[in-house]
Amino acid sequence: MNLKSLSTLELPPTGDFHCHLRQEKMMELCTPLIKKGGCDIVYVMPNLQPPITQVSQAVSYHEKLSQIAPDVTFLMSLFLHPGLDAAAIAEAARSKVIYGVKLYPAGVTTNSHDGVLDIEQYYPVFKAMEEHGLILNLHGEMISSPPAEFAKTDGTAAVTVLNAERMFLPQLHKLHSAFPKLRIILEHISTREGLAAVQQCGPTVAGTITAHHLWSTIDDACGDIFSFCKPVAKTPEDRVALVRAIVEDSGKFFFGSDSAPHPIQSKKGEGRTAAGCFTQPWATALVVGALEEGIEQGWIKEEEVTYKAIENFLSVYGRAFYKTPRSAGSEKVKIRLERKGEIIPEVVKSQDGTIEVVPYGRGKKVWSTTWIE
Amino acid sequence: MNLKSLSTLELPPTGDFHCHLRQEKMMELCTPLIKKGGCDIVYVMPNLQPPITQVSQAVSYHEKLSQIAPDVTFLMSLFLHPGLDAAAIAEAARSKVIYGVKLYPAGVTTNSHDGVLDIEQYYPVFKAMEEHGLILNLHGEMISSPPAEFAKTDGTAAVTVLNAERMFLPQLHKLHSAFPKLRIILEHISTREGLAAVQQCGPTVAGTITAHHLWSTIDDACGDIFSFCKPVAKTPEDRVALVRAIVEDSGKFFFGSDSAPHPIQSKKGEGRTAAGCFTQPWATALVVGALEEGIEQGWIKEEEVTYKAIENFLSVYGRAFYKTPRSAGSEKVKIRLERKGEIIPEVVKSQDGTIEVVPYGRGKKVWSTTWIE
Repeated sequence: MNLKSLSTLELPPTGDFHCHLRQEKMMELCTPLIKKGGCDIVYVMPNLQPPITQVSQAVSYHEKLSQIAPDVTFLMSLFLHPGLDAAAIAEAARSKVIYGVKLYPAGVTTNSHDGVLDIEQYYPVFKAMEEHGLILNLHGEMISSPPAEFAKTDGTAAVTVLNAERMFLPQLHKLHSAFPKLRIILEHISTREGLAAVQQCGPTVAGTITAHHLWSTIDDACGDIFSFCKPVAKTPEDRVALVRAIVEDSGKFFFGSDSAPHPIQSKKGEGRTAAGCFTQPWATALVVGALEEGIEQGWIKEEEVTYKAIENFLSVYGRAFYKTPRSAGSEKVKIRLERKGEIIPEVVKSQDGTIEVVPYGRGKKVWSTTWIE
Repeated sequence: MNLKSLSTLELPPTGDFHCHLRQEKMMELCTPLIKKGGCDIVYVMPNLQPPITQVSQAVSYHEKLSQIAPDVTFLMSLFLHPGLDAAAIAEAARSKVIYGVKLYPAGVTTNSHDGVLDIEQYYPVFKAMEEHGLILNLHGEMISSPPAEFAKTDGTAAVTVLNAERMFLPQLHKLHSAFPKLRIILEHISTREGLAAVQQCGPTVAGTITAHHLWSTIDDACGDIFSFCKPVAKTPEDRVALVRAIVEDSGKFFFGSDSAPHPIQSKKGEGRTAAGCFTQPWATALVVGALEEGIEQGWIKEEEVTYKAIENFLSVYGRAFYKTPRSAGSEKVKIRLERKGEIIPEVVKSQDGTIEVVPYGRGKKVWSTTWIE
């Protein structure tokens, strides 16, 4: 395939196996944009306010989302917290809409203050998840060290946003060893070390890669608040490795946008900038565009970019790992990417104008995505 | 000295050997605040719009600043650019108000687009500076690599905001070897490697340390736009090393705030966030406060913090290196730091309300600085 010479590219619908759809007005704004991004199935994060900790909450959230976008399949998740036990996991599995449980190391990202620190306390929960076939989704970052730990005497580095993922990786290996049959996903991988760690694990461990990590480095994370997310984008070498992971098509990595809309006030307000990049409406286009950029910049060769690799990353491997009801190719529905000069706008607004979200990649020219049904 | 038990601390006036005073209304807002920060002498950066490239511009700028704050000594600088030659350097030295020339690697910081890349082209200028006793001030960062250089084949890392200072250090050594009598300052050091490089050089090389780098890490640089500056704050270990460099009192490091006010629109606007932290009005207080924080967090011992080390860093070494007309202790004027519960405000406004600057460290409780004359 000669991607750069194509004017049109038809693909099966994309699966987005990590997205934030929020609640209330923000949910109403974002949920209808899933299909614009080329996706027909999404795995929905549970970090609402309050977090989705009960099966009944997840079921109710699923109903709301399905009403807004009835032709999208929503896979739901629970927020790992001390109230979860084996009985709750069994109930979650019976719900049919809940596919996994999300672990947030406390405080590392938006609305994760109630997250976890001591992983072993959840071993009974993980055991139940393994038995019932639920997936464990890891926000694979350690929490940044408090100042009192800045001058460590044991020689280890203090944790910052830079090494937070790398420092977490022993936890991934520990969990995988303790629960070899538990399906685990290292979410939104941002480093070469994260990619390598997933490669080292058995087939029950996979990783997701976002669209924005294919486009950003730490320079963007620092200088552009709308490129600031957790994990922060890392070095150019990490960015190149993420792009290459798609074309290398190992079967270990698939798409999870981590699209995370924030009202503009949370990004540009008085306090700290909220972490998150909003990519949902251009999810597929940004991934395919990143492969073009990789060719353009000499990170990958034209001939390395195959239709199969794109399809696998965007549509096949994620559905297979999640054992989803709607598998790629099971229907004749396709999406079509076309070069129509579409530009990511400066802002996405709710109809009543009360919510404004600045999308990631504003001003970038992208493929347009339409549906062929 | 038991810093934490003191309610009052009297010091000679601080010298700020790196500050941005801007022009027009921003200049009128910031210049009167120099004394509030405890400073009676400042070295003024030339990156105006247009940059100060001519002796006559520096002299005119000096006059304007002196009119606003007649009791502050302003040392002026020129912006290194291809138009500078040995004759211009001689003229600068004769001016009596120009003390140095600032090198900005092109594009690395605010208004440095006209800066330099190829250092050797300026060797004739540096030779003239060495002869005439002008100081070379280095913004010691390489420019971040463009995407086409992200996947380098020679094994070296691409340059990012993270390694930009470290990657610049060979240039410092090269310049020092080529011009051993030229006084060179590595400005706003942000890494342990930067500190070590200055230590390795002879007595003609010194380094400045800002107030905000004593308080920030990369986590702040990413998540708080008002903590974002160039060089970006690095790791906790770097932060600790900078605090320790003050109490270690080697004679190689002195204060340069790099206070860099930006209108709030440049920080919170649509484009990239402008790099720079505004610290001028609390310059001395933030440095002394950082030493207290260092004791509090266990990075330095109470007994390591001596009056002499504080005085040397804030007031003595800088004046000596610059061979200034007003030396510390030559007058009876002192500043007094007192604990009055002063809080750095959310915003500093011009009298007509047209300019708003959000200071670094807003909300932080700091020592109040008054003058005893």
